[in-house]
Amino acid sequence: MKNRIIFFVSDRTAITAETLGNSLLTQFEGVERERHVIPFIDTEARAASVRDRINDSYTVNEGRPIVFSTFTNDDLRAIVAESNCIFYDLFNDYISRMENDLRQESSHIVGKSHGLVDKSSYESRIRAVNYALVNDDGARLDHYDQADVILVGVSRTGKTPTSLYLALQYGIFTANFPITDADLENSMLPRALKAYKKKLFGLTIGADQLSRIREERRPGSPYASLRTCQREVSQVEELFHMANIPFLNVTAISIEEIAAQIRLTRELDVKQF
Amino acid sequence: MKNRIIFFVSDRTAITAETLGNSLLTQFEGVERERHVIPFIDTEARAASVRDRINDSYTVNEGRPIVFSTFTNDDLRAIVAESNCIFYDLFNDYISRMENDLRQESSHIVGKSHGLVDKSSYESRIRAVNYALVNDDGARLDHYDQADVILVGVSRTGKTPTSLYLALQYGIFTANFPITDADLENSMLPRALKAYKKKLFGLTIGADQLSRIREERRPGSPYASLRTCQREVSQVEELFHMANIPFLNVTAISIEEIAAQIRLTRELDVKQF
Repeated sequence: MKNRIIFFVSDRTAITAETLGNSLLTQFEGVERERHVIPFIDTEARAASVRDRINDSYTVNEGRPIVFSTFTNDDLRAIVAESNCIFYDLFNDYISRMENDLRQESSHIVGKSHGLVDKSSYESRIRAVNYALVNDDGARLDHYDQADVILVGVSRTGKTPTSLYLALQYGIFTANFPITDADLENSMLPRALKAYKKKLFGLTIGADQLSRIREERRPGSPYASLRTCQREVSQVEELFHMANIPFLNVTAISIEEIAAQIRLTRELDVKQF
Repeated sequence: MKNRIIFFVSDRTAITAETLGNSLLTQFEGVERERHVIPFIDTEARAASVRDRINDSYTVNEGRPIVFSTFTNDDLRAIVAESNCIFYDLFNDYISRMENDLRQESSHIVGKSHGLVDKSSYESRIRAVNYALVNDDGARLDHYDQADVILVGVSRTGKTPTSLYLALQYGIFTANFPITDADLENSMLPRALKAYKKKLFGLTIGADQLSRIREERRPGSPYASLRTCQREVSQVEELFHMANIPFLNVTAISIEEIAAQIRLTRELDVKQF
């Protein structure tokens, strides 16, 4: 067990190979000993050096290395595939099936998914990041008309990382606004948000975890105490219910799951071409 | 052409299906008319409703919808696969091959890749984001011992988004530091960075694009003028050469490619298990 070396190899970033391989490997516990991401293998010399590196990493005591790859170039793929490994190539496996199913030849163009992207998409992501930074933690109230979604929640529930993730990954304009004690006591939405109810999404979290996170920031403070956290979490969830704001408890889930749930709920998942 | 509706469906986030499908679709230009990401299809009722939605979206004038999915549950997958579509399921296609190749049964556990993640990985990403925010734009100089990488470059070359991406996606502790006119004139590295040369990575960009980006920020300013940008870019590239700092021109590439190149160059791509 834990005896295999994993390689993610591509003529571009290897992100697709890594995402695919990660997903599959989670279904085979204890297989993985070490991993190497090897992007930009776009010449025969580089491909040959990867082949040799894979061969060198294989010893008789170990299982064969597993290689997940996404080569668009058949010659480069063939060189790497010569190595003594278990080889899975996404493009090899799907492209010909798709050509057949779609009755259309593939363009075999390298790395269009994560490279040489159209500038508008790149720039819209950068703009979304700038938007998220400027509109973090309620810093500005006058740009909410531009927001795709406004995250709300008490302090330290992951609003900032989630905002940045939505911006960076999908170019979604995401603001976030902290719910304060005054709001909780009145059980009222902050005035600044009232006109934007359709854009709101609440984040909440288990009181234990919230307390632990706040302790890292202000150890021993009333702010971090379990009692404060319990009160705030229960009050904010009540506020979300009353104001009819969709919300998610982020205690045991990943940033990817939070983002997927927000996109689903706020219908940010449809892209027209 | 442009006649197919694309669905990305999963019992978890659908991120793997989306990444996979995006990569493949870039090889078939003009196929895609509209896309829908449908995560969290984890009951038979939901799967049936997706099946119906796919069927409803198909009209005789159009090509059949294309569905990319990653179901770990065979029953749910079968329900969606009944729909009138071109169906690709990553798990179906690979898991049995892998079981065979690895001589090990898969765990068939739902969504381990993007869900119910081990807390240490989630928290290390959040910590890395906080680190990137605190150490953005040279705001702090006393935490560089904790940095995995320190991005350097003149103003507006994408240091902040790249730092946040490395932090969010990979938990890489990334600081960034602006190279100023004074540094360029002396052709010397800022003093604060000298002890950390092994962690530095430079970003540079075409002067035209830099000028355009700066114009958005301060229209008509000397700071944004093409002449200033040309001078700064040429001086900073010379500085990188002289100080032997690896650097990348980010003009025509994506954040993913920049990140992949940084991980490769600074050897942040190897993970031991």
